[in-house]
Amino acid sequence: MTDQALAPIESDHPGVTDLFAVLAYGEISAFYRLTEEAKLSPTLRGKIAVAKMAASEMRHFETLEAALSARGADAFDAMAPFVRALDAYHASTDPSTWLESMVKFYVGDGIAADFYTEIADSLPDDVANVVRDVLAETSHSEFVVEEVRSAVQTSRSERDRLTLWGRRLLGEAITQAQYVMAQRDELTELVLGSAGDLNGIAALFERMQDSHAKRMAVLGL
Amino acid sequence: MTDQALAPIESDHPGVTDLFAVLAYGEISAFYRLTEEAKLSPTLRGKIAVAKMAASEMRHFETLEAALSARGADAFDAMAPFVRALDAYHASTDPSTWLESMVKFYVGDGIAADFYTEIADSLPDDVANVVRDVLAETSHSEFVVEEVRSAVQTSRSERDRLTLWGRRLLGEAITQAQYVMAQRDELTELVLGSAGDLNGIAALFERMQDSHAKRMAVLGL
Repeated sequence: MTDQALAPIESDHPGVTDLFAVLAYGEISAFYRLTEEAKLSPTLRGKIAVAKMAASEMRHFETLEAALSARGADAFDAMAPFVRALDAYHASTDPSTWLESMVKFYVGDGIAADFYTEIADSLPDDVANVVRDVLAETSHSEFVVEEVRSAVQTSRSERDRLTLWGRRLLGEAITQAQYVMAQRDELTELVLGSAGDLNGIAALFERMQDSHAKRMAVLGL
Repeated sequence: MTDQALAPIESDHPGVTDLFAVLAYGEISAFYRLTEEAKLSPTLRGKIAVAKMAASEMRHFETLEAALSARGADAFDAMAPFVRALDAYHASTDPSTWLESMVKFYVGDGIAADFYTEIADSLPDDVANVVRDVLAETSHSEFVVEEVRSAVQTSRSERDRLTLWGRRLLGEAITQAQYVMAQRDELTELVLGSAGDLNGIAALFERMQDSHAKRMAVLGL
């Protein structure tokens, strides 16, 4: 409960519950998407790599569930407002190939991590630590990078197709993020408080586009 | 490397690799089955409970993968001989309702745990600890017990149907276990060495049927 000049966001800000809840539903939907998309894997090795990624999403969900419960919030009630936007994101970016699925995992996770970690930077430590913990990059991404890089090195048309796919993922993610913010005043307040003002938010989205471009480059796209 | 009267099984027995491998593929197939069956869940709460169970199967898989690797075995090569039998078990016991899926999870896991822990009891500690670790009961079973008990208390026909279902699960599990043993001499040697002789195996199967009946009773069946 510090009281600094710029009215920092306190741990008990109701937007924090929203933040944990949207992250929690994000983990659940990623879990089910990944296990569904694993069917596209041409190998058992690929299926198992995906199962491991999915399992770490559930570990993150359990962290968030505990954090919500520590705030006196029920995870299911708290997640309810975010189900529609996240389901819409996944429905609008349903991969039709194994490589699209891998790019979506890597790029989509990256976009989300950029957004939430920037917000976390201006939140109290106890909140920021939960957010950073559940967004920590895992070694599993290495698997994705190798799969995609080797595929696009040998096929120009695959590379072009996946480049467009990556661009679409960014667009859809931003659309749904804006939709969520428009619906949830308290979360918007948190993001605004974190970014400073609307200009700050514009700058945040620009930084996200830069990081996105870097991630695409890592994939060879 | 003790040298007792009854020629105890040593840690470097090749059947141990088979044992870890069949357990490992069991975890993978349980993972994918559970996430597939979660679609049958009428609630988000049920889906998440199943996702947590699935995630713990993957943690167990990672333990077994590490144990196989410590023995110089590649998990994928080692699992290959067991894919057919385990896939056949799951194909022949494909649940058509959420409750069947829950019973299968609880009862199937229990049968497997009985079988493997009995074998583990006569294996060297380093091997036995891995087996016990991956078979340790999780708190998630509580969810299953509550779901099934409350459903069968209110419906006699549901209870009858699930009782038959449980019996079928036991039968199929034993069929596939026998098939695996017939194919894998080294694993059979391990089981025989652990049970003493064929009479010991018969006694083991009898104890498994008793435990099965107790588990069914816990579910109200």
